[in-house]
Amino acid sequence: MEDSPQRAVQGLGSFPWYVGGTQVLGLACVVITGVWMGSYHGGYAWDGSGQEFNVHPLCMVLGLVFLYGDAILVYRVFRNESKRNVKVLHAVLHLLALIISIVGIVAVFDFHNHNKIPNMYSLHSWCGMLTFVLFCVQWLMGLGFFLFPGTLMALRSWYLPLHVFFGLAMLAMSLASCLLGISEKLFFSIQHTYSQFAPEGILGNMLGLLLVAFGILVGYVVTREDFRRPPHPEEEALSVHFKTLTEGRGSPTSP
Amino acid sequence: MEDSPQRAVQGLGSFPWYVGGTQVLGLACVVITGVWMGSYHGGYAWDGSGQEFNVHPLCMVLGLVFLYGDAILVYRVFRNESKRNVKVLHAVLHLLALIISIVGIVAVFDFHNHNKIPNMYSLHSWCGMLTFVLFCVQWLMGLGFFLFPGTLMALRSWYLPLHVFFGLAMLAMSLASCLLGISEKLFFSIQHTYSQFAPEGILGNMLGLLLVAFGILVGYVVTREDFRRPPHPEEEALSVHFKTLTEGRGSPTSP
Repeated sequence: MEDSPQRAVQGLGSFPWYVGGTQVLGLACVVITGVWMGSYHGGYAWDGSGQEFNVHPLCMVLGLVFLYGDAILVYRVFRNESKRNVKVLHAVLHLLALIISIVGIVAVFDFHNHNKIPNMYSLHSWCGMLTFVLFCVQWLMGLGFFLFPGTLMALRSWYLPLHVFFGLAMLAMSLASCLLGISEKLFFSIQHTYSQFAPEGILGNMLGLLLVAFGILVGYVVTREDFRRPPHPEEEALSVHFKTLTEGRGSPTSP
Repeated sequence: MEDSPQRAVQGLGSFPWYVGGTQVLGLACVVITGVWMGSYHGGYAWDGSGQEFNVHPLCMVLGLVFLYGDAILVYRVFRNESKRNVKVLHAVLHLLALIISIVGIVAVFDFHNHNKIPNMYSLHSWCGMLTFVLFCVQWLMGLGFFLFPGTLMALRSWYLPLHVFFGLAMLAMSLASCLLGISEKLFFSIQHTYSQFAPEGILGNMLGLLLVAFGILVGYVVTREDFRRPPHPEEEALSVHFKTLTEGRGSPTSP
């Protein structure tokens, strides 16, 4: 298209605003979750009480929403850094998301077990656990395909579009699991006042919409064509290095 | 990439299986919703009773999930038909989805009003209504930009990626709203047996996972590069026709 360079410049002019928007929305989600559990449900503890449960939503929103979203965005934000460094940052942010979400999952299982509440019966738990398991599989596959130096370039090229697609699909699943968790928490906590527009219900609903907005904005920034990472000379050199291991030519498309 | 034609042929070989998979999953979701409301909640009526409520989930899954997904897929399935015909089919399927979802929304409001149940307090209702309103806006904008013959090609090219992105984002929102609706219905209906793995709870949870699978498969078919619609000679001719109205060259990228 003949107007691509002009569009690219226009696009990059608005880029910081979009990224800033994701950070404002993501942090707002973390803060609102923290304040909700802190103000309405007595804060945090690790003693099998309701305060231990409160660790769960905070960790899941921080790990499998905010850090997960930011780990995806690093390929756009650090567009001029070495791709290898960005890959490592992507993996480390995802690892951090994984560790924090494991703490969140242990918290809710521990709370249930202390209080003889059955585990894994609700749609929230099914969706959430499926998302978490797929997230672990995707993290391990990403490590094997993109950071393990012996992986054939042809295999990387084959896996890259799947990694990108399922990365975004799982972010959507993670957000859907959060919405289910919010709804479940509200029906448990304010069953009789939710329908009278209790403040906690409105706060929870607003949090749900902010999570949706975060997901849409991250998805938009990552998929918008003129925000894509441009090819860099050192990546070509890196590809040449790996090329000796395979017949495939050129580096895989930038995610 | 030098192996693109080979990959394209491989890709198209598996294409019918992927499309078949979407149809099996989508129909399974509609049938399970219908059977759930029919077997566990007494079937369907239009008299303000619980049977009128049952119209709501069935219409929403049929309209804003199955038909919505199929309306998106027509650009891939009818890859060798005239683009104008495919556009009209896309618009008609979306219109059908819109009409059926309006019936579903009227059903739940009517049921609530008959039974003095407040409207629009839950996260399900907020997400669902937001999705429905955005769907209406997107349908009208699609009509104005792509089917109204006087629209400038430059405007079409500008709007197309937004239309495609928000189309998929809203399908995800629609699915999230369905999951919230399933969870809400289960907590209302089997509050005391859901945690004991009551059959209705397992059915609802399975429906939720099938909806997620449908969304992921539709998203995959639509975004996979070698499933994209190839350019056709008659579309070029059509572009020339519209080109007289604008300085922009060529037809917009195929969605």
